[in-house]
Amino acid sequence: MGLLVVGSIGLDNIETPFDKVENALGGSTTYIALAASYFTGPVSIVGVVGDDFDLGHIKMLENHNIDLEGLQIVKGKKTFRYGCRYHYDLNVRDSLFTELNVFESFNPVIPLKDKKTSCAVLGNIAPSLQINVLDQLENPRFVVCDTMNFWIERTKDKLLEVLKRVNVLIINDSEARLLSNEPNLIKAAKKITEMGPKYLIIKKGEHGALLFGDETIFSAPAYPMENIYDPTGAGDAFAGGFTGYLYKSQDFSFENLKRAVIYGSVMASFCVEKFSTKGLEDLSYLEIQNRFIEFKELSNFN
Amino acid sequence: MGLLVVGSIGLDNIETPFDKVENALGGSTTYIALAASYFTGPVSIVGVVGDDFDLGHIKMLENHNIDLEGLQIVKGKKTFRYGCRYHYDLNVRDSLFTELNVFESFNPVIPLKDKKTSCAVLGNIAPSLQINVLDQLENPRFVVCDTMNFWIERTKDKLLEVLKRVNVLIINDSEARLLSNEPNLIKAAKKITEMGPKYLIIKKGEHGALLFGDETIFSAPAYPMENIYDPTGAGDAFAGGFTGYLYKSQDFSFENLKRAVIYGSVMASFCVEKFSTKGLEDLSYLEIQNRFIEFKELSNFN
Repeated sequence: MGLLVVGSIGLDNIETPFDKVENALGGSTTYIALAASYFTGPVSIVGVVGDDFDLGHIKMLENHNIDLEGLQIVKGKKTFRYGCRYHYDLNVRDSLFTELNVFESFNPVIPLKDKKTSCAVLGNIAPSLQINVLDQLENPRFVVCDTMNFWIERTKDKLLEVLKRVNVLIINDSEARLLSNEPNLIKAAKKITEMGPKYLIIKKGEHGALLFGDETIFSAPAYPMENIYDPTGAGDAFAGGFTGYLYKSQDFSFENLKRAVIYGSVMASFCVEKFSTKGLEDLSYLEIQNRFIEFKELSNFN
Repeated sequence: MGLLVVGSIGLDNIETPFDKVENALGGSTTYIALAASYFTGPVSIVGVVGDDFDLGHIKMLENHNIDLEGLQIVKGKKTFRYGCRYHYDLNVRDSLFTELNVFESFNPVIPLKDKKTSCAVLGNIAPSLQINVLDQLENPRFVVCDTMNFWIERTKDKLLEVLKRVNVLIINDSEARLLSNEPNLIKAAKKITEMGPKYLIIKKGEHGALLFGDETIFSAPAYPMENIYDPTGAGDAFAGGFTGYLYKSQDFSFENLKRAVIYGSVMASFCVEKFSTKGLEDLSYLEIQNRFIEFKELSNFN
């Protein structure tokens, strides 16, 4: 039994002004689990792929001490596929295609040994699936949840049900404004924490992240990056680093959540330095610690 | 001889979605000097107004230990006037009118006693006027400079002359991108410090500020504000708090510049809480120190 991650697993075609890749490993589960794997293990994932899914990917995940018992491989069907193109301003992306394939009928089944996990991450999937997962868990201590504009706009009622049952919601600034119907982020955060989650993290891309909770606010800086090669998965890497560190330390105080936000930012910064999951595949403990210290020096004053 | 501030002094008509004021005290010099006056005094200002300028404003400035020897009052002429309207998104403003009046033929004359000042702030005025001021100073130790899109677009050559002669440039993110012709702020900062100023501060509004220099970056958080009543003068209040604190401490190390950036952010946060200069007119030492501590708690982690 370890940290549990449920979400999508996919194959991505990604174009940026610098390069392009096809059939690259993607999906929220993948990024979250890889980022978390540097802090704790095994990380159990629950997801679905088709039989076109490269065995090399499976091997790479296993090498990161990721437990694949909950991975469903559906014969004769294709893996979820997504294509997008980033503009020169990497904050803007066009979706080129979305092929749900096996994901269309995904029914997450939590392995028996993982139902008692103390900590789970619900990646960005339909709120009804997130509820399905929550229903299978036996009294988890700490649940971290992601969502996106699509679910806020189309299935808000279901999402509100989810929010009542999770401890931390991680969303970006535009999603926070949409969910709360409030342009001011400080007011938006108040409204959202009243919806259920004790803690809220608002990611602001190149401007860092804000952690709200315990009537306190923590402002995390962004890592100063001259070159971002591929923003795909940055938010998931953040969620993975954040939760992986928390799970390892088993300290859910606000002070430790602040540290976890920095570790999340550290993993997101590594993620965007390479295409697809490459930036998360081969990191050392020292690299991660050094970047944590860089974050500290970046925002520290006396 | 004290800290010297040169820039505009004006009367503003300001409309926001919440309220509107007419003939309110404005201008870069005014905001800079008021903010700086909480750290050091006397603050000497050089500027020009018409004989329509309210004596009440003069009294208020004098009450803040602001030295008005360099203030020219032109008889029979009107003060510089500016009108603008802010939208619901307070980052967007429409200029309604600009009447240069006495400012059209402004020739800054630095009082003899102020020519030897060790520290000067060049508010956002034409680069040719900034050069005129620099030519009158006798070897100042530390010069802080502001500018805006208008001068970057129209008088870039003159501005580049100014930049070779100042120690700190304070601009916002869009101005930094325009000046450097580089969308990435980290790269933009490198290009700009190569133009002359040893230190560069990029203000990012609700996302805080970045200080660049000594091959180091400091990221200052933004104060979490639920209600911004009037953004006018926030950048000038930042420059005033920053320079006032530096002048008082006479410590121009990077570590102390970081503290100065926070004091600048503190003064900007007070500025926007009320209309016109009202937010800077009646602060206590304790309020300023408490907010400095709030900034520290906002970004501190171990």
